[in-house]
Amino acid sequence: MQLLKDKIRKYGKVKEGNVLKVDSFLNHQMDVSLFREMGKEFKKRFAGEEINKILTIEASGIGIACLVAEELQVPVVFAKKTQTKNIAGDVYTSKVESYTHGRVYDIIVSKEFLGEGDKVLLIDDFLANGKALEGLCALVEASGAELVGAGIAIEKGFQVGGEILRSKGIHLESLAIVDGMDEKTGEIMFRE
Amino acid sequence: MQLLKDKIRKYGKVKEGNVLKVDSFLNHQMDVSLFREMGKEFKKRFAGEEINKILTIEASGIGIACLVAEELQVPVVFAKKTQTKNIAGDVYTSKVESYTHGRVYDIIVSKEFLGEGDKVLLIDDFLANGKALEGLCALVEASGAELVGAGIAIEKGFQVGGEILRSKGIHLESLAIVDGMDEKTGEIMFRE
Repeated sequence: MQLLKDKIRKYGKVKEGNVLKVDSFLNHQMDVSLFREMGKEFKKRFAGEEINKILTIEASGIGIACLVAEELQVPVVFAKKTQTKNIAGDVYTSKVESYTHGRVYDIIVSKEFLGEGDKVLLIDDFLANGKALEGLCALVEASGAELVGAGIAIEKGFQVGGEILRSKGIHLESLAIVDGMDEKTGEIMFRE
Repeated sequence: MQLLKDKIRKYGKVKEGNVLKVDSFLNHQMDVSLFREMGKEFKKRFAGEEINKILTIEASGIGIACLVAEELQVPVVFAKKTQTKNIAGDVYTSKVESYTHGRVYDIIVSKEFLGEGDKVLLIDDFLANGKALEGLCALVEASGAELVGAGIAIEKGFQVGGEILRSKGIHLESLAIVDGMDEKTGEIMFRE
């Protein structure tokens, strides 16, 4: 998606350790007009698929998910991150290992809002090692819902997440795939 | 706002300890078409005010904030909750006491995205004791930005938050004010 790539080139900051900071428009300050265009683009890319629910994960996936949801006229459910030890039986739960924060946390979703008959599109802002997305897939599977696919704003193509998910046959659409970054020059290389 | 009150009456669940569960449409599963109408309503209620930024707090404020932001054609910034002890100097920080979780956490916002010249509307899903909103007000004040007002989906009118904020002269607009709940009958009383 050219508009997103342009934004990344213009406002993205390459930091040490393959970190791409896009917090001026994607995940701290949010450019909702960009999210609207992303919503339209996901609608095109998943045209023909039956989708009745979007599942995302707090916090930075929520904004994008809401705009996609409005395009598709479906509700959003967001999985909650928790470190609570005793989780009640009325939720599906999955473990996610955070690369950035170096810890494991649980994600939960209420059984009320995900289940058999649901046709679910996952939405998130970033895909790197794919741990969060794998966690969401596990929630969908546990619930008996059907996974339609996953829509990602920015995929780090040089990390393993995208490859793992595609090799499982998941319909993954990333609006911008970054194949490399140079922290010295600030250059960002996109996959064509 | 009648539509919101109707949803609360139809889908809200009154639980022990003055808890109002609205997670089927507001803060776990999210009815984005409702958020759109809320966005339009806030636009009306703050008509004539100059607003160039919306500030909310993760996670459940983000969805509503995005739809309001699209109506007002401004970006959203969401404050992040953190328990990190060492916070870098490039953020504004404030402490929030969580009534629900019985703990104190820090909220932060990058200095890059809030500052002098900003005219800020706060948006959140709930107002009860007002601690989160007071924290957001403190961030706005620390940044030198101007606080235009606060828009809330559901205010618990029998808790002190609304009164405290209004007594400070803050332009507070709540789309539904719950003045009482009966956990035995499930009845919910709204302020007229």
